[in-house]
Amino acid sequence: MEVGPISSAPRTVEEIFKDYSSRRAGIVRALTHDVDEFYAQCDPEKENLCLYGHPNDSWEVNLPAEEVPPELPEPALGINFARDGMNRRDWLSLIAVHSDSWLLSVAFYLGARLNRNERYGFDSNQRVTLFCRLSRKYEQEV
Amino acid sequence: MEVGPISSAPRTVEEIFKDYSSRRAGIVRALTHDVDEFYAQCDPEKENLCLYGHPNDSWEVNLPAEEVPPELPEPALGINFARDGMNRRDWLSLIAVHSDSWLLSVAFYLGARLNRNERYGFDSNQRVTLFCRLSRKYEQEV
Repeated sequence: MEVGPISSAPRTVEEIFKDYSSRRAGIVRALTHDVDEFYAQCDPEKENLCLYGHPNDSWEVNLPAEEVPPELPEPALGINFARDGMNRRDWLSLIAVHSDSWLLSVAFYLGARLNRNERYGFDSNQRVTLFCRLSRKYEQEV
Repeated sequence: MEVGPISSAPRTVEEIFKDYSSRRAGIVRALTHDVDEFYAQCDPEKENLCLYGHPNDSWEVNLPAEEVPPELPEPALGINFARDGMNRRDWLSLIAVHSDSWLLSVAFYLGARLNRNERYGFDSNQRVTLFCRLSRKYEQEV
């Protein structure tokens, strides 16, 4: 999986929120407009696969990051293995819930890292601001 | 890793919040009071290890769940491999940030699952309530 150079990591609350929104847009597309292609890519005969949403609004089904511990929290592993043992709609719901949880974990991971990095001028209130920003987005979704 | 029977999964906002708080208490202990034991268990010669916080306030260093996709979001994998290549304090901070992110992902995963399960009488406002509850806790922490 390509995670991009660390220099491109989001550094402000707004950048993290944009990162979250873009990754989410990619995942939503994988599970709706592109669902047939997504379904086909999740071949249970392949190795452990994950669904990634990228900051450029794209999605990707790929093997997990080789680097451990990973640079960012990783999405649910082995989604392809569950595909054929479940109703299609239930399987897609399972991926959606795991993806939602993953998107939040990435946002808070980035937020926490920035928070303790004083050279970027962050203080602890920035984490709360991020929480509030995501909360409002979350409220709109449900 | 033991995840316990599904019948014991938290079903209300308060239960999910209690689950989060208890898992977090275990992880905080691993990284503070029990830090020498935690450090020793994260042997880089062993396989990919994870730090789990359990709903009974305990912590555990163990291999990842064998079941894929997992029943719950998984914590960062391979934390032991990074131990000897970093300053101890930086390594513990990395684990703390990954753990914080994981705790939130578990809480929202449980919250999302409950939300769509109408037999437990949940509606979408419950997810927002959970977000607010965690946000207040988060605010106290930072």
